Amino acid sequence: MKQKTGIWFVGACGNIATLVQAGILLLKAGRARPAGILTETELVKGADLPGYDEFVFGGCETKKPDFRQSLLYLSGFIPTVKNNCRFLLTNLNKTLKNISRGIANETGPGDIGHVRAQIRKFAKANSLCSVIVINVASTEPMPSPKAVRLTLKQLEQSISSNRKTGLPVSSLYAFAAIAEKSPYINFTPSAGSSLPCITEFALRERVPHMGRDGKTGETLLKSLLAAMFVMRDLEVKSWSGYNILGTEDGRNLDLPQNKTTKISTKQGIIEKILGYGPDTKVGIDFVPSLGGWKIAWDYVQFNGFLDTEMAMQFVWQGRDTALAAPLIIDLARLMRLSQKRGEFGTLPHLSMFFKSPAGCDANALPEQFELLKKYLRTVNSGQ
Amino acid sequence: MKQKTGIWFVGACGNIATLVQAGILLLKAGRARPAGILTETELVKGADLPGYDEFVFGGCETKKPDFRQSLLYLSGFIPTVKNNCRFLLTNLNKTLKNISRGIANETGPGDIGHVRAQIRKFAKANSLCSVIVINVASTEPMPSPKAVRLTLKQLEQSISSNRKTGLPVSSLYAFAAIAEKSPYINFTPSAGSSLPCITEFALRERVPHMGRDGKTGETLLKSLLAAMFVMRDLEVKSWSGYNILGTEDGRNLDLPQNKTTKISTKQGIIEKILGYGPDTKVGIDFVPSLGGWKIAWDYVQFNGFLDTEMAMQFVWQGRDTALAAPLIIDLARLMRLSQKRGEFGTLPHLSMFFKSPAGCDANALPEQFELLKKYLRTVNSGQ
Amino acid sequence: MKQKTGIWFVGACGNIATLVQAGILLLKAGRARPAGILTETELVKGADLPGYDEFVFGGCETKKPDFRQSLLYLSGFIPTVKNNCRFLLTNLNKTLKNISRGIANETGPGDIGHVRAQIRKFAKANSLCSVIVINVASTEPMPSPKAVRLTLKQLEQSISSNRKTGLPVSSLYAFAAIAEKSPYINFTPSAGSSLPCITEFALRERVPHMGRDGKTGETLLKSLLAAMFVMRDLEVKSWSGYNILGTEDGRNLDLPQNKTTKISTKQGIIEKILGYGPDTKVGIDFVPSLGGWKIAWDYVQFNGFLDTEMAMQFVWQGRDTALAAPLIIDLARLMRLSQKRGEFGTLPHLSMFFKSPAGCDANALPEQFELLKKYLRTVNSGQ
Amino acid sequence: MKQKTGIWFVGACGNIATLVQAGILLLKAGRARPAGILTETELVKGADLPGYDEFVFGGCETKKPDFRQSLLYLSGFIPTVKNNCRFLLTNLNKTLKNISRGIANETGPGDIGHVRAQIRKFAKANSLCSVIVINVASTEPMPSPKAVRLTLKQLEQSISSNRKTGLPVSSLYAFAAIAEKSPYINFTPSAGSSLPCITEFALRERVPHMGRDGKTGETLLKSLLAAMFVMRDLEVKSWSGYNILGTEDGRNLDLPQNKTTKISTKQGIIEKILGYGPDTKVGIDFVPSLGGWKIAWDYVQFNGFLDTEMAMQFVWQGRDTALAAPLIIDLARLMRLSQKRGEFGTLPHLSMFFKSPAGCDANALPEQFELLKKYLRTVNSGQ
Repeated sequence: MKQKTGIWFVGACGNIATLVQAGILLLKAGRARPAGILTETELVKGADLPGYDEFVFGGCETKKPDFRQSLLYLSGFIPTVKNNCRFLLTNLNKTLKNISRGIANETGPGDIGHVRAQIRKFAKANSLCSVIVINVASTEPMPSPKAVRLTLKQLEQSISSNRKTGLPVSSLYAFAAIAEKSPYINFTPSAGSSLPCITEFALRERVPHMGRDGKTGETLLKSLLAAMFVMRDLEVKSWSGYNILGTEDGRNLDLPQNKTTKISTKQGIIEKILGYGPDTKVGIDFVPSLGGWKIAWDYVQFNGFLDTEMAMQFVWQGRDTALAAPLIIDLARLMRLSQKRGEFGTLPHLSMFFKSPAGCDANALPEQFELLKKYLRTVNSGQ
Repeated sequence: MKQKTGIWFVGACGNIATLVQAGILLLKAGRARPAGILTETELVKGADLPGYDEFVFGGCETKKPDFRQSLLYLSGFIPTVKNNCRFLLTNLNKTLKNISRGIANETGPGDIGHVRAQIRKFAKANSLCSVIVINVASTEPMPSPKAVRLTLKQLEQSISSNRKTGLPVSSLYAFAAIAEKSPYINFTPSAGSSLPCITEFALRERVPHMGRDGKTGETLLKSLLAAMFVMRDLEVKSWSGYNILGTEDGRNLDLPQNKTTKISTKQGIIEKILGYGPDTKVGIDFVPSLGGWKIAWDYVQFNGFLDTEMAMQFVWQGRDTALAAPLIIDLARLMRLSQKRGEFGTLPHLSMFFKSPAGCDANALPEQFELLKKYLRTVNSGQ
Repeated sequence: MKQKTGIWFVGACGNIATLVQAGILLLKAGRARPAGILTETELVKGADLPGYDEFVFGGCETKKPDFRQSLLYLSGFIPTVKNNCRFLLTNLNKTLKNISRGIANETGPGDIGHVRAQIRKFAKANSLCSVIVINVASTEPMPSPKAVRLTLKQLEQSISSNRKTGLPVSSLYAFAAIAEKSPYINFTPSAGSSLPCITEFALRERVPHMGRDGKTGETLLKSLLAAMFVMRDLEVKSWSGYNILGTEDGRNLDLPQNKTTKISTKQGIIEKILGYGPDTKVGIDFVPSLGGWKIAWDYVQFNGFLDTEMAMQFVWQGRDTALAAPLIIDLARLMRLSQKRGEFGTLPHLSMFFKSPAGCDANALPEQFELLKKYLRTVNSGQ
Repeated sequence: MKQKTGIWFVGACGNIATLVQAGILLLKAGRARPAGILTETELVKGADLPGYDEFVFGGCETKKPDFRQSLLYLSGFIPTVKNNCRFLLTNLNKTLKNISRGIANETGPGDIGHVRAQIRKFAKANSLCSVIVINVASTEPMPSPKAVRLTLKQLEQSISSNRKTGLPVSSLYAFAAIAEKSPYINFTPSAGSSLPCITEFALRERVPHMGRDGKTGETLLKSLLAAMFVMRDLEVKSWSGYNILGTEDGRNLDLPQNKTTKISTKQGIIEKILGYGPDTKVGIDFVPSLGGWKIAWDYVQFNGFLDTEMAMQFVWQGRDTALAAPLIIDLARLMRLSQKRGEFGTLPHLSMFFKSPAGCDANALPEQFELLKKYLRTVNSGQ
């Protein structure tokens, strides 16, 4: 009998978590082709990855757990979801028993213990060999400077002395996951496991984790195109990007404090790849009528030989949720592989999936892809 | 005393050859910064590449050799050229003595011997240790099927028995170069050394050569972006590209037979990278008023997870000549290095510079760049 | 009891004709809002236009009449059609009795008589007070020079002496319509009533007619934007447009002889509006996977004060059939009004609906719109 | 002898004022063609407009008057300016004697009197028959609610009792101009003559004035394209625009309070034209390396027949200063005509030149152009 791996979502009924679960249901039922899933391609042939039927889903939600709203939203732009709506709702509802009450704000000293108990309960109830915790909740404001400076020692003292930790909620979840030896993935721009104290904790506990912020659209292109300017030694003078989005997270990003968190992971990648700092701008606007669309326009002004002035632009018309979901399937599978192989801490070979890859200098997509290919060669050669 | 390397251009007074020579003059005089030249970056630090002052220029021209027209054209969009026009004309004219009469059509059996003599004369007159032949002449029509089927043996029999060879002119030059042990670079879509008989000849004579068609703009982006669709397992449904150009080669490409040659190197790259054949279109129009601009719009229709439909577009506004010139400087330097190292035949590590890299399966830009990086690591490690 | 007006389509089961009929069915049933229909807006308030329930549909088809294929196609990108498919098919099938066999090529002297008989039969069977003939069939090749030179007298002699006329099929239909005193609308680039002999015939018979080629997308924008360059005295240097389309007419336009006909109505409009001839290019490619999309990219290079160089681009992502159908509803209504008012010949106030408006100097969209507004003011003032 | 008309710029050495003066110098000297100037076209043939040699320039500057910086800036992207730099500087310097000290902030009760004296002195020193005051100074913050509510009576009481008025500086200038019977043009988004008290004052004094904010680029296109959606009854769902600019006013607009003023004139035009309020966004970023470029991307999402979803985008690559300068020449000429004809108050026939045309309901460009054409017909018919 095959061992089951649990996927425990922070934000279990949100659009992304719903689409991951819906997609797996459709794939298992032969109602969809596995498009957009890298771990289904030749590249990873031979690696010991969990199959679709080895996943069990659960998680937590701050609102009353209900898949209907997300299904309705996804039906608006994914015909396969629309055409299978009844099938999906029936089957998704079977997961509801695995979804517990989520924390919106740190309420007191017991929060971490509460989350740990939820994860343990999920594992036990479903006889899981492993639980992978994945954050797909709404973006938080930036963490306070105090939270960033917090040492692991101070954090553990707070916990043991029953004081509030001052951590952002996403980091409470990351801590709880790691304490339960659960690999942790942060698909959002929130702090999660990126705070120094959590990163240190994961190393000590020998738990693998990775983040932040899934690289699905504009930044994916940026991290690819910036590499080209390096390969041709063309000097980027300015890079201005403007994003309009109708996705549900757009509503959340419309709050200035959350937008700042998002821009912080989108900004800066150009400079990291180029090695110098051209003038970069990142604008985001929430346009509800765009529905599932996330549209970006980027204008890159650059100079070539003898300072000749040139420019390139791109327009990206993506369905963000449909771009995110398969990455999460890939990440869950590869994370489970790392866990089996005894890897821990941040995982550079997963950097290509993130806007701000933790503990990794590779920011250019081609370089990141090389890291994954190299890793898979090592895996497949049995090392 | 430093050894001199000759660069012998087929098309010595054309816009590209003029800009290469002008650029080197400006760089030597400290009148320009070495932007756009990959061999000036950290990447190639340590490799034994010729400096700017080790190059001597020459070549052939089918028209009366004269740099004025190209200088005027380049002045139209490269301020550095405009501001140094007098300095450049004076110095470029010193090269005129190295420029001989070019062949427009195969005139008879003596053509190859004629070219070989020109190359030898150039080498002798300038005490050169090596001559690199670079084709930057106007694009020819596609080679005849007969020329493609010609064996090396048949070709040599034609030559020895004083018969016309039936080769396109670019291949006559390639043959002559190789016969003189001169490395050969084909920066155009013309046949050059890509005909089987010439490729075989280069192997037998142990001469390095590379081509075809410098990858400067739209195709550069294509070979980068197509790789992204692979990295994300996104299915490209169609890729339509439309190019408008005011560059002088546009006038030549406006002739249907030459446009076909060009489209043949631009087309097909998408399929090679993706591993399947979406619907691809490539259109080219000559718009004289665009002057030095080469503008391309590409529309890529693709499907993601659960066949969700998405799209991306890019607009490239490039100055083609300014993008080509530094690539030729890089190629000349790296070709000289290969020659010193005794490498011969096609050079896969130079594939990133070409639309249709000879003898190389790597079509995606990131993969091609890896080949160059790997090669340079080998070189620098003294192997 | 209300009088009924017949709409007799040449191409009655094609995508456009099907969508017109489907749209009217949905509007009558209250299953859709009247969006995109100018004759529903404040602008035409008060004019005596036929209501949706006063229309009866019929026409001819060269293939076996069947609405299923078009409905399937339209369902692919118009959710309202998809969601009402059964309702639509049932009701559309009631029209099948009004659809007769169409002519693909001139077969002999009896063709015109045959068509006239069909129109009369349609009118009689449905007790119609008027029949408007609308050409929405596939684009034909350009008419022969002989057909263009044909005089009305020669044409009538051919008919009376039972000889073939040499007219393109679209013009046979136009002649038949006019002979039956039926107003005629040519929504395609085919010749239709634009041949001098037909135009003369319509004047003599005092029948209103209008064409050619519905202005739905790229040309609509061109005829608007070109006017702006006039309003600002900016000098257009070049205007390059590239269209990719997956619509069914794209398949037909992929045949070179038909593409030429299409480009002839798209080309030239810029020069007519500007009063001088910049370099214009129009490219069209058929990309089947685009389905109902018609996507165009236009690049306009222009000079301003002191010859300062500037540019503008647009990208149009339109569903061509959905743009065409409401124009036909507007045209049918306004044509019926003209008929009632005793107007005949070409109708300049309908020029805004056509790429090549017949008998009208106004090519700029704003100017054409003024003509319609002025006409409606006259109508509403009771003149 | 011809009568001279003075142009008195608020911001006399800024880029726009400098280019207007430079342009007139070049046109008078036959060193440039009158491109981009509507009053040079057929349209206005016959109207009694001042010629280039009838203009005398002057104005005020808050900084030490100096044309060198603006000339240097303009030389960067207008070759005609660069090639005539010496000629221009010499001649522009002759204007310096007409430039007096400008007011940066209201300093006290004497400000208006000070400005009036400057205008009078300019007129007298140059024997002018008329002085037209044109505001091309940097954009101010939005006027205070108190200034907006101020009545003309209150304002005149403040002045007469030697109290500060609380008006923004641009409105002090507008008041002074009108008090001197000088026609006033506000080419900026600042308040100028748009405050109710000034508008009333102009009516009472029977002085013509017009504003606000020259319509040069993105908004020009918006006011044109929005009209198309009306002409086709297409429903705009959202209209998102993003502007990046390297022009000097970009630096000023980078201050949040000034950006708000600018966005206020750009925003809202869509709703005014459409008659309903889709979701509109306007973003502006200052990107210094863009130099004279003002680049805008607009994405318009719209629905057609049966709510079919479609989209259009445009990219505008304009040189804002070069677009503004000829409009000012047109405005000065047409304002002088109005003055001669005894027109006063706001001038609706000039609405096509402004983003927020004062006292005018016409916001769509075609409609505004009709107003101008109609006005010119009246003028030319001698009414």
